[in-house]
Amino acid sequence: MAKDMKKTDVKKSTVKQVVSAKKTAGTKMVYFFDEGKKEMRELLGGKGANLAEMTGLGIPVPQGFTITTEVCALYYENNRKVPVGLKAQVDANVARLEKTMNARFGDKTNPLLVSVRSGAAASLPGMMDTILNLGINDEVVQALIKKTGNERFAYDTYRRFIQMFGDVVMGVPHHDFEHEIQKIKDKRKVHHDIDLTAADFKELIANYKALVQKVTKKSFPQDPRVQLDMAIEAVFGSWNNNRAIAYRQLNDITGLKGTAVNVQSMVFGNMGQTSGTGVCFSRNPSTGENKFYGEYLMNAQGEDVVAGIRTPLSIQELEKQNPRVYKQLVDIKNKLEQHFTDMQDMEFTIQEGKLYILQTRNGKRTAAAAVRIAVEMVKEKLIDKKTAILRVEPNQLDQLLHKQIDPQAKAKAELIAKGLPASPGAAVGKIVFTAEHAEEAAKTDKVILVRTETSPEDLIGMNVSQGILTSRGGMTSHAAVVARGMGKCCVSGCQDIKVDEKAKTLTVAAKKLVLKEFDDITLDGSTGEVFKGSLNLVEPGLSGNFATLMQWADEFRTLKIRTNADVPRDAKVARGFGAEGIGLCRTEHMFFEGDRIKAMREMILASNLEQRKKALAKLLPYQKSDFKGLLKEMAGLPVTIRLLDPPLHEFLPKEKKDIDDLAKEMKVPAQRIIEISEHLHEVNPMLGHRGCRLGITYPEITEMQVQAIMEAACELVKEKVDAKPEIMVPLVGNITELQHQKAIIKKVAEETIAKYKVKVDYMIGTMIEVPRAALTADAIATEAEFFSFGTNDLTQMTLGFSRDDIGKFLPEYLKKNLLEKDPFAVLDQTGVGQLVQMAVEKGRKTRPNIKLGICGEHGGEPSSVAFCHKVGLNYVSCSPYRVPIARLAAAHAAIKQTKK
Amino acid sequence: MAKDMKKTDVKKSTVKQVVSAKKTAGTKMVYFFDEGKKEMRELLGGKGANLAEMTGLGIPVPQGFTITTEVCALYYENNRKVPVGLKAQVDANVARLEKTMNARFGDKTNPLLVSVRSGAAASLPGMMDTILNLGINDEVVQALIKKTGNERFAYDTYRRFIQMFGDVVMGVPHHDFEHEIQKIKDKRKVHHDIDLTAADFKELIANYKALVQKVTKKSFPQDPRVQLDMAIEAVFGSWNNNRAIAYRQLNDITGLKGTAVNVQSMVFGNMGQTSGTGVCFSRNPSTGENKFYGEYLMNAQGEDVVAGIRTPLSIQELEKQNPRVYKQLVDIKNKLEQHFTDMQDMEFTIQEGKLYILQTRNGKRTAAAAVRIAVEMVKEKLIDKKTAILRVEPNQLDQLLHKQIDPQAKAKAELIAKGLPASPGAAVGKIVFTAEHAEEAAKTDKVILVRTETSPEDLIGMNVSQGILTSRGGMTSHAAVVARGMGKCCVSGCQDIKVDEKAKTLTVAAKKLVLKEFDDITLDGSTGEVFKGSLNLVEPGLSGNFATLMQWADEFRTLKIRTNADVPRDAKVARGFGAEGIGLCRTEHMFFEGDRIKAMREMILASNLEQRKKALAKLLPYQKSDFKGLLKEMAGLPVTIRLLDPPLHEFLPKEKKDIDDLAKEMKVPAQRIIEISEHLHEVNPMLGHRGCRLGITYPEITEMQVQAIMEAACELVKEKVDAKPEIMVPLVGNITELQHQKAIIKKVAEETIAKYKVKVDYMIGTMIEVPRAALTADAIATEAEFFSFGTNDLTQMTLGFSRDDIGKFLPEYLKKNLLEKDPFAVLDQTGVGQLVQMAVEKGRKTRPNIKLGICGEHGGEPSSVAFCHKVGLNYVSCSPYRVPIARLAAAHAAIKQTKK
Repeated sequence: MAKDMKKTDVKKSTVKQVVSAKKTAGTKMVYFFDEGKKEMRELLGGKGANLAEMTGLGIPVPQGFTITTEVCALYYENNRKVPVGLKAQVDANVARLEKTMNARFGDKTNPLLVSVRSGAAASLPGMMDTILNLGINDEVVQALIKKTGNERFAYDTYRRFIQMFGDVVMGVPHHDFEHEIQKIKDKRKVHHDIDLTAADFKELIANYKALVQKVTKKSFPQDPRVQLDMAIEAVFGSWNNNRAIAYRQLNDITGLKGTAVNVQSMVFGNMGQTSGTGVCFSRNPSTGENKFYGEYLMNAQGEDVVAGIRTPLSIQELEKQNPRVYKQLVDIKNKLEQHFTDMQDMEFTIQEGKLYILQTRNGKRTAAAAVRIAVEMVKEKLIDKKTAILRVEPNQLDQLLHKQIDPQAKAKAELIAKGLPASPGAAVGKIVFTAEHAEEAAKTDKVILVRTETSPEDLIGMNVSQGILTSRGGMTSHAAVVARGMGKCCVSGCQDIKVDEKAKTLTVAAKKLVLKEFDDITLDGSTGEVFKGSLNLVEPGLSGNFATLMQWADEFRTLKIRTNADVPRDAKVARGFGAEGIGLCRTEHMFFEGDRIKAMREMILASNLEQRKKALAKLLPYQKSDFKGLLKEMAGLPVTIRLLDPPLHEFLPKEKKDIDDLAKEMKVPAQRIIEISEHLHEVNPMLGHRGCRLGITYPEITEMQVQAIMEAACELVKEKVDAKPEIMVPLVGNITELQHQKAIIKKVAEETIAKYKVKVDYMIGTMIEVPRAALTADAIATEAEFFSFGTNDLTQMTLGFSRDDIGKFLPEYLKKNLLEKDPFAVLDQTGVGQLVQMAVEKGRKTRPNIKLGICGEHGGEPSSVAFCHKVGLNYVSCSPYRVPIARLAAAHAAIKQTKK
Repeated sequence: MAKDMKKTDVKKSTVKQVVSAKKTAGTKMVYFFDEGKKEMRELLGGKGANLAEMTGLGIPVPQGFTITTEVCALYYENNRKVPVGLKAQVDANVARLEKTMNARFGDKTNPLLVSVRSGAAASLPGMMDTILNLGINDEVVQALIKKTGNERFAYDTYRRFIQMFGDVVMGVPHHDFEHEIQKIKDKRKVHHDIDLTAADFKELIANYKALVQKVTKKSFPQDPRVQLDMAIEAVFGSWNNNRAIAYRQLNDITGLKGTAVNVQSMVFGNMGQTSGTGVCFSRNPSTGENKFYGEYLMNAQGEDVVAGIRTPLSIQELEKQNPRVYKQLVDIKNKLEQHFTDMQDMEFTIQEGKLYILQTRNGKRTAAAAVRIAVEMVKEKLIDKKTAILRVEPNQLDQLLHKQIDPQAKAKAELIAKGLPASPGAAVGKIVFTAEHAEEAAKTDKVILVRTETSPEDLIGMNVSQGILTSRGGMTSHAAVVARGMGKCCVSGCQDIKVDEKAKTLTVAAKKLVLKEFDDITLDGSTGEVFKGSLNLVEPGLSGNFATLMQWADEFRTLKIRTNADVPRDAKVARGFGAEGIGLCRTEHMFFEGDRIKAMREMILASNLEQRKKALAKLLPYQKSDFKGLLKEMAGLPVTIRLLDPPLHEFLPKEKKDIDDLAKEMKVPAQRIIEISEHLHEVNPMLGHRGCRLGITYPEITEMQVQAIMEAACELVKEKVDAKPEIMVPLVGNITELQHQKAIIKKVAEETIAKYKVKVDYMIGTMIEVPRAALTADAIATEAEFFSFGTNDLTQMTLGFSRDDIGKFLPEYLKKNLLEKDPFAVLDQTGVGQLVQMAVEKGRKTRPNIKLGICGEHGGEPSSVAFCHKVGLNYVSCSPYRVPIARLAAAHAAIKQTKK
């Protein structure tokens, strides 16, 4: 939502497009690799900046040049037209590249072929389109044959180019090309591309060209310079394709200008058995182990490795196959890791025995790897603690906090297959075979997406699934990379299984087992194991490097981290994760178990004060024992208990059968329950008779709850347990409401304390969740000893979004880019945040030592935690499993602030 | 709600109560009448200040002294104890009074009797308790007999005192005294008090004293000084009795310190046939006519006149009865009116032929009288225009805008009785006989409260009734005074009818007619006529003095006044009342008539875009013709049209029968309608899929509406009608929403204009009704050419109050004083107002010439209009019948501002 002003800015600059275009004529829009350096990431993109840096370091990089990200921005401002002056600069750099490489575009002896790749300042794997072999045409292919003597390679290169360029630049569907290649294979009765001959490819090229002509009504461009211009535009265009937008949304990537375009001379991994291509990491990206890690394929082009179509070899195999190249590669990875002081993800190509590094970047990694690498690099004195902390994205920790299969259950379980441990954690769910089915079924069930391989089209389906299982693809396949990014359990390249998406079956031939849609399955993404049925999962904990990193985070953060917990069990888990108190105990959650709901309903059905008090007296012991458990679990730490909040009708049954049962049990006519339900019915319950409005109309409810809290605290104090209750009044919008409730709370609390003759530290405060409370926080702070921002409700009221009904328009809003993010997941800093900041300032002005916290679900979301740090809250409170995330996010915020 | 800080202040000062008490020891707490003047109203109350002023003017005022309003405030701060030092000052003033009057408390020859009356800075008629004849006891009564030789008078005086003091000060129920007097009357077989003898009263006194003893367990106090102290405390206590609080709430009287206490030596209107008492007005308080007006009773005490028990004589009768006194009274009223430059309401007593003025004050008056008096006093050069404008309370005009009986209907109607024209206007409703029944029945029906006479206990019942009819009491009876204050139609003293509250009958003996509960009746409060059945009422208009005053108001106001109107008929009425445009046309209201709802439902039930567009095409001509009508009616003035706002489910039928009918009509299965209804169902529709969220998910709706608006405007421009549409996007919370809708509006508007080849002035703006819109108004103003504050929804979201559900807790809030007013009636300036002010500032900062208005229902509420003036809006918009009120309120705000 922070985009309000930005949008306007963009609009303003659109008006000035002609001016911009003129202005750019004089700017440097293209950098040759030796003109850049790694600090120019914003301008050259990550890939371009690192290619330039590597060039400077003397690493063998195929030369080329980078068109800046600013040009991409201008392209969009300019209504999708490349700015004036770009062509001339590209011409000049092409000329220089031709000179450097001693090869020329379209040359009949020494033709220059280039790759064209996107590369923004942040890494967007698999999202942006890449074109290889650009520069080839009917004549060049002959030159290539002449030069290499490898006719099959030359025709293969040409057909690959037509296929890629035709798809990405000219919009001919990928599967149309696949169809053509299949036709040839069928004709030749072969199964693999590798079995096709030069003649087959030649025939295929003719068919491809005919296909392009048919679909686009244009012939395939033969002029390399035209090819290049078209490719550059296509890269810019791909910046705003749906997948790219979706990826940026999913990964919270904002504020980028656009993508740079890297034009790099081609080297070929598919020039025969002394050629190859691979992807490698300076450390293991899955575990973080400091051991060279990677995969490669001989006689292949780069896309073959990451596309997951052939299962590649481990990088260690290369040491046997070509020890010289392997040693060179190891030296380079060491040099790059030392230079960039981070784990590197490199692409390399061996062309007829000669090693080239195509790109390097800081490698993506699992949370476990991120933590281990960060901690170990500090021990290796490569980085300092602050850097280590910033190296781990708080949200990523979620993976470490994922469930694992219960070891006991696992021991007895039926292992049906084993694939690659592509993304850690465990998942249980029902099998679905397409992303669409996943989306549909995930509404009601937990699902596991099972695919031969995944593609960017599957993104949303993957996101709603518990885990992903693929039969093809390596550790760097689409499924693996994306799943790790999402922190989702994934087993990839599981060759033991055969997936038939059409028939909706998963077959394990070795076991003579066929699983169907909606059968239960369990994945272990940390081991690659696949189990039949639904296994029990267990909760994770803090230890080893994780614990160390958390300790370091605690050294820097200033925000306290509390948890939202309603039962002792959750409080215990949270304290294990480092929670420093309870920020929100929702008392109503205690009312739903067993006999409690009966007493609660009795209270609601009471027809007078006396009956109501009688029912409340039954609830008192339950509440008291609950509070005692919570306060004991959090001994020495504050426990904020919110008084009854939801509208009473939430506690009554809705279905006829349940109503009849209740009537029988309560010995009242069913009609009476229906009447009371109808009487309690509200048009907008969110804005209705709830929160402190209940305590005001039924003061006896407040009295009972406070009595339960204070008796629990008093008894604990007698038992020498340091109980610190903080009593919180919900939904206050007017100081008078808090005054009313505070008077009751104070009276009951003091009476209870007097009765027990002990000293109990307790506080009385309020939620700030109604906009008016934020607006009048100065007045409210005269009575409240603490504020807790209930940003869920505050978001509902400030934005006018009913969380229950948002589904009808939010997807449309995100799709149309009217909202950047779901405001219930990520705090709307511009709107809701403004109210929070206002309340902080007003509250502190009246009562400088007022305690300020947040207990909405934003309390565990890193960007929102950073906001809470910035506006000066004392604590955030979040669900138990997000406590470590909040601790790290708070450390990030503190470190980033001191850096400024 | 503006009380937030105040409450705290009060609390703080409560803490300091001892300090206050000490502090007061030195302050002057009591003023003798010749020590004050009219400017000391705040301190002495209206009554006290005017008694002092009259004393200064040489008017014959029975002497006495006033205890200040500050003492009342101290009394409450002091936990309902009179402050230290008061007693001594009262003693001193009693001594001075005794000396002045040559009489002493408890004296056996010349005893001093006093009245004790409340009197705050604002007039609160009928609300505060008064005690007469204080100082009388068993001995004094004998002295009185000796002194006057009138035994009956003396005992009557004593029994009246016991009755009044016993009720008001000692809490013995009034009806217990009535019961005693009835017993004596029964015994004597007489009907009226006047028929009782001295001996009867003597007996009654004994019975009264026994009654007091029985109820209070205390004997009736004999010491006059003790009586006085008790009476003073009782007056202070009555300041916060329920009736007083209710009256202040009902009349928006806030910010008073408390009541003063006036202790005044008694004069007696009941000392025989040369004595009397009356109430008079320097001009007619009902019509405003400049003619001496009043009522009196001979041989009566003051309370007899206002209590309405005996029907008094017109003041003109006095000229015949006692021309000397009459002339003196006329001279005094002339002197007082000239002196106070306002119409005076005076109480007088004639004691054995000698005239005393007991009090004077600016008289309450009907709206018609207020307008006439204000305008005529300007013509008489007594006051200036500004003063005249401020003399008429804007809300009061509501009376003039009340309906009248359709003359044609009246001609044929059955007149059943005629009473006093106590409060103007007309009312139709069902008869109810008690205030409680009125409250109950008013929930579903329009009711007329019919009573023998009313009392303060009936206040709430009177408020919910359409009109009031009493069989007893004059023009200054409780019913008449209160009804005029409420602007409610009232016929009082209708002696033709007999009311039996128990049997629930209204009998007109002359007509042999008996009406029962829930029978229809029609009142004309301007003539006093009562008709059988339900007559047609007609709407009022602007003319004569009213038109003059409105013209003067327009000279001073700077706020423009628009109206909320959805149909040409309303627009026409509003323009007649001076509306300067339409501030809100709710397009959805147009969808409910006739065939339109069919097309609307077709649109909602459409299963695809094509079907939906087809249905929308059917709606287009309806919308276009509606807009044409509105724009034509408002030719030359701006017309703000809001795009579709409510959730779609509001347009679908809810009842099974209606669903079946619709299904048949639409030729779809009923199940499909039910399914769509269920799909559209929302948990919190207020915060759901409505407003611009509809136009965003279904852009074709926006397209159709804009097309209809612009075609209407274009066609009118072609016909030389100056159409000025302003297109308003509802429920915007984010600039991106407005951008989205504005693009569609702009496109369709420009296309339509191009098609018609005309020039149309149109604007595009937005509602500010979501808190986030106010918070980000700077961004929104980059796109919006105008803001219209939708304070209904803004109040709902800012306070978290669902207007539909507030009934469950608002009454409790008002009762417990947690809210001063219903925030949907009176703008919450502290909370909602803060957002409005913020949006005004932010909006103007971005776009200095942005047009700002309000279209919530607060637009016609005077205090809210004053707020709108203060924060600098350009216009307010209200319902047609409130346009004159808003015009006057705007003039008030402007004049009051320049006065500061």
